[in-house]
Order: sequence, then structure tokens, then C-alpha cells
Amino acid sequence: MIVTSNIDDLRELLKPHLGHIGFVPTMGALHQGHLSLIKHLGESSFKVMSIFVNPIQFGRNEDLSRYPRPIERDMELCRESGIDLLFTPSNESVYPRGYRTYVEVEDWGNLLCGRVRAGHFRGVATVVLKLFNIVKPSIAAFGWKDAQQGLILRKMVSDLNLDVEIVLCPIVRDSDGLALSSRNAYLTQSERSLAARIPECLQCAGDSYREGLRDFAQIREGMLQHFRKHPEIDVEYIEAVNMDDLEPAIELRVGVLLALAVRIGSTRLIDNWRVGAEPLPFDQ
Amino acid sequence: MIVTSNIDDLRELLKPHLGHIGFVPTMGALHQGHLSLIKHLGESSFKVMSIFVNPIQFGRNEDLSRYPRPIERDMELCRESGIDLLFTPSNESVYPRGYRTYVEVEDWGNLLCGRVRAGHFRGVATVVLKLFNIVKPSIAAFGWKDAQQGLILRKMVSDLNLDVEIVLCPIVRDSDGLALSSRNAYLTQSERSLAARIPECLQCAGDSYREGLRDFAQIREGMLQHFRKHPEIDVEYIEAVNMDDLEPAIELRVGVLLALAVRIGSTRLIDNWRVGAEPLPFDQ
Repeated sequence: MIVTSNIDDLRELLKPHLGHIGFVPTMGALHQGHLSLIKHLGESSFKVMSIFVNPIQFGRNEDLSRYPRPIERDMELCRESGIDLLFTPSNESVYPRGYRTYVEVEDWGNLLCGRVRAGHFRGVATVVLKLFNIVKPSIAAFGWKDAQQGLILRKMVSDLNLDVEIVLCPIVRDSDGLALSSRNAYLTQSERSLAARIPECLQCAGDSYREGLRDFAQIREGMLQHFRKHPEIDVEYIEAVNMDDLEPAIELRVGVLLALAVRIGSTRLIDNWRVGAEPLPFDQ
Repeated sequence: MIVTSNIDDLRELLKPHLGHIGFVPTMGALHQGHLSLIKHLGESSFKVMSIFVNPIQFGRNEDLSRYPRPIERDMELCRESGIDLLFTPSNESVYPRGYRTYVEVEDWGNLLCGRVRAGHFRGVATVVLKLFNIVKPSIAAFGWKDAQQGLILRKMVSDLNLDVEIVLCPIVRDSDGLALSSRNAYLTQSERSLAARIPECLQCAGDSYREGLRDFAQIREGMLQHFRKHPEIDVEYIEAVNMDDLEPAIELRVGVLLALAVRIGSTRLIDNWRVGAEPLPFDQ
């Protein structure tokens, strides 16, 4: 596995592989969710991963400084997982002095997680556009765990006529159903137990759907009731949106995303279910 | 010369030429200023021009509907000028229903012309980024007439790690010194005579500079006095900025852009002098 932090070197190294580059952009602190993305790049692709904790997607009061950065372990995981090239650029090379260009998928970045994370999706879209311009992948993989991110990036690619295929890959869950996330590492043991209530809650919603309930207001009320039993879980939002336009959905149906964010202690966790299109947390 | 309006067809047609595509994006109503850009693409390049009157760079009260669109004449000029492929996309293909992605070079788009043309440079940056992603040029040429546009596009290319060289080409002027512009066609005969005062005014400023005057406040006062003799010319701004950061310049020196915008009747005209780096209007 080649490792480089230098943009110009990377461009040179990738030239022979143009046209069959597969790319997984990450912020590191890799887990099986990240590693599962690699399998979606296609066997014959030249597999590039980037690890870059992107400062502009963190809000002022967010966890940029404490975000985990276990780079030695990440490199080992990349090596074991068949990554051909690992790109680890510095902040200074990605955002040199005087940097001032940003891309925004308007409105979509202000919904769901965007309501409390102002500027987050602008930061994500901008860094991914830059990484795409540097790496020039034919295919790039992201996880459905960050569903809003995936939909925004797909929209950016389509709107900006970028020549890259975005593959969104199934959520990988722990044995108790909790969606894997680098931020799970912040949880204390008791918080970690509580966090399993999140997929349970989605499971309940999905069970209601399978029993024929469609009205989202009712399903949402059931989910809130579920969380009320655990007042240590602070519900930020539970929403249903059409995946094609991110407009609120009144009824659950295929094509709708049921998404939620909660806080447990100081940790913000998100999860979602693509109605009908994805197994429920405990059916996997 | 190949002519196409279809983005997918264009991509196919350009595939064999990837790596040596030269590109001139325009809004049509071509004049010698546009045609001069073609010579800067390099002899061996495959020369692509686009003609697209980009709606998102026009303000609500601007001249989108009356902007000249002499497409037959433009095609003839392209043919005569050695363009290999002319791309004339429709509004609907560039901005399909639900379009919502925009790129912004922050702050720089709000200065100079941006003070009265809110959103203009966001519209320019967005369409040029899209066109670059579609055409994939190695080199693209723009005119120094639109100096702020050129500097913003160069900054966008650098910030977003785009792999394209931006060449900015000298202003082409009419025999009386007026910078060529598609909008000159709006001028009545008497307005057209008045418009020659614009390059005269830049010439005065340049003459003062050559005589040793550096203080921009004094030079600006001289220029305003020049325009005061012609009250039909409504001065929008006269400013001097450093070209590397667009910060106001107190003194004229190499690296400073002296730029102005005026209105004559309903027509807005711009012009500029890159201090010391460019012949003055009447020295050409």
C-alpha cells in the first residue's frame, strides 16, 4: 500500500490508473462500516482511501479537536482491507491560506442534521468536491448511515455534471443493532447500553410499517414514546423525507427515509431506515 | 466544425481529445475579443467553444431577456476562427428542474462589480465549474476585460484543485479605445461616442502613473473630474485592488488592478487597467 500526504505526488501516482479508480473518502477512526465500503468499489478498481478530518464540516462547538485520530491503526486496517493507496493530506494543503471557495447544495443542507449543524454539509460537499478533483475516481462509496450526506453528494455530482458514480452502501451495525460510527467511541459503558435503544426504536417503527401503519405522525409518536422510557436519550429530531427531493413525507412508503438524531451525554448519534428498501436493524 | 447541444453527445465526442482540449466559454454575441481568446489555446489543442447565456449570472433587473443572441452569425464566426466543436446547451439541460448546487468564491464576488450585481459571480463560477466538468479542458481562456471574473475563476480553480489552466488574455479595443463587449450593441450612436471617454479616462490615469503619481485617491479624483465633464456618464465605481487578494490598494503599482464601471443610458460598461502590466488603451 502506498501512503502519501502530497497532492501533486498523489496525482502522479494515480495517472496510470485513471478511468478505474475507486475511492472511499473518510475521516479515519475506521470501523467495519468504512471497510465494508471498499467491497463496493469493484474488484478491478485501483482502491484509494483518504483520511482527512475535515475542519470545515465541524461547527464551532463540535468535536473537531477530540475527534479520534488513530492513524497507525487505520493504516493497518487499510493494508488488511486491500486499499492500494492511502491519501492523508494536511489541513494546510487542503485549505491553504486565503482559501475561500465553497460549494453548497442549497436548502438540503439546512434540513434534518443541518438544522443544528449549520455549515456542516457545505463543508462536506466542498471537501468531497476537492477530493474528487484531486483523486478523479470513477466510483466513490459512502455509507447510508450518513443518508443526508449521501443524498446531498449524489445531488452535487448530478448538478455539477461530475463524472463519478456515487455508491451508497448499507449501514453496518454492531451485534446489538447500533449503527457503527467513529463517534460511538465517545460513549461510556452505560451510554453505550442506552444507545442500543436507537435501533430498537427504528425496529418498532419498521414493525408498525409492516403491520400496515403508514401515517408518519403516528409512527413518530410511537418512536417518541419509546424514547420517553429513557430520558437520558435527548431526541434531536425524528423525521421522514422523500429521498428524491428531501420534502417531508406524510406517509411512509418505499422512497422515504426515516431519520433521527439523538444525544446521549455529550455524544450525538444518528440513524435511519430507508423504508422498505433496507432490512430493519434486527432483521439483518 | 461539430455543433451539439447535448451534454452526453459532447462527452462522447470529446473523449478522443481528452488531455489536449482547449476551451472558450462564452455567452455568444461574439466579437473580436472572444475570437482573440482562441489563439491562446495553443495550436495543437482541440478547440471547443460554448455559447450559453447563463441565466443565473443575471440579476432580476438585468438584461437577460434582451441579451443579444445572434446564433447564426456566431456559428459562422466560430467556423472561420478554427473552432473544432461548438457546444450550445439549453437552459433545461444545464439547470434541470430541482437544480440547487452553487459554488461561491466568498467575499471576492461581493466587491467591485459584485456590489451592484448580487449573485453574479456565484452564477459565473457555478456555470464555469459545470462546463469544465462537462468539457474537461486542459486549458481555458477568458478575457482581462472581465478582470474580476478572471481572478475569481483562477481562485476557484486553485481552491477546488481543478486540473485546468486558466489563461487570461489582453483586452481587445475598438479604434477609439472602447473595450469590445457584447453589450456595446445596446448603445445608441451618441452613447457610443460618449463611451470612448472610458478608455480616455484610463489613459489619463495611466499617464499620471507614468509621470510618477502613485496615490490612488489622487488618481481617482482626476478620473472623476474627467467624467464630470460628461454628466451623461454615471460612474458606478472606480477602484484599485491588489490582484492577489482583491484588497483595496492605496497606491498604484504593478500587481494592482484599476477597475471601473459606468452607466451610459441603460447600458452598464466596465473597463480596467492592470497597472504597468498592460499597454494603456491608446498605446496599443
